[in-house]
Amino acid sequence: QDAKAGRVKASAQCAVCHGSNGMSQLPTAPNLAGQVDIYLAKALEDFRAGRRENEMMSVVAKGLSDADIANLAAWYASIPITVGTPP
Amino acid sequence: QDAKAGRVKASAQCAVCHGSNGMSQLPTAPNLAGQVDIYLAKALEDFRAGRRENEMMSVVAKGLSDADIANLAAWYASIPITVGTPP
Repeated sequence: QDAKAGRVKASAQCAVCHGSNGMSQLPTAPNLAGQVDIYLAKALEDFRAGRRENEMMSVVAKGLSDADIANLAAWYASIPITVGTPP
Repeated sequence: QDAKAGRVKASAQCAVCHGSNGMSQLPTAPNLAGQVDIYLAKALEDFRAGRRENEMMSVVAKGLSDADIANLAAWYASIPITVGTPP
């Protein structure tokens, strides 16, 4: 897993919807900052394999290699988030 | 949307995997703290309708009402998160 390579890939293909720091730019796109890497990798694999469908993600994931998926998951999981006390 | 009611529902059914503050307790469960509410509601609707499948979530979502889904989404979206600078 290479978070730096993941960061480069993300800035090209993911940041437009998921934000440069992993915070969503669209109501239909989830925040990815600090997300669990194993969960992220599975989501991308599911989109790529068609086990999970989304207009945008099904297309984006088609072009991802296993290395891309591991690197993207490592990148987003590496973004530090802190949780505050709910209102 | 009633985040407080969502918090009560979450503590009963979701916290075991997603954590009492929305931070994942399992490598296969995503963090939900501060997630986009529209995205969360759609995910729960998709699990409930079978458009998306997960061993655990397909079962959990079956028993959720529309109000439950709106309240759970409001609750998790209300948990404040701050994003730090990636390493």
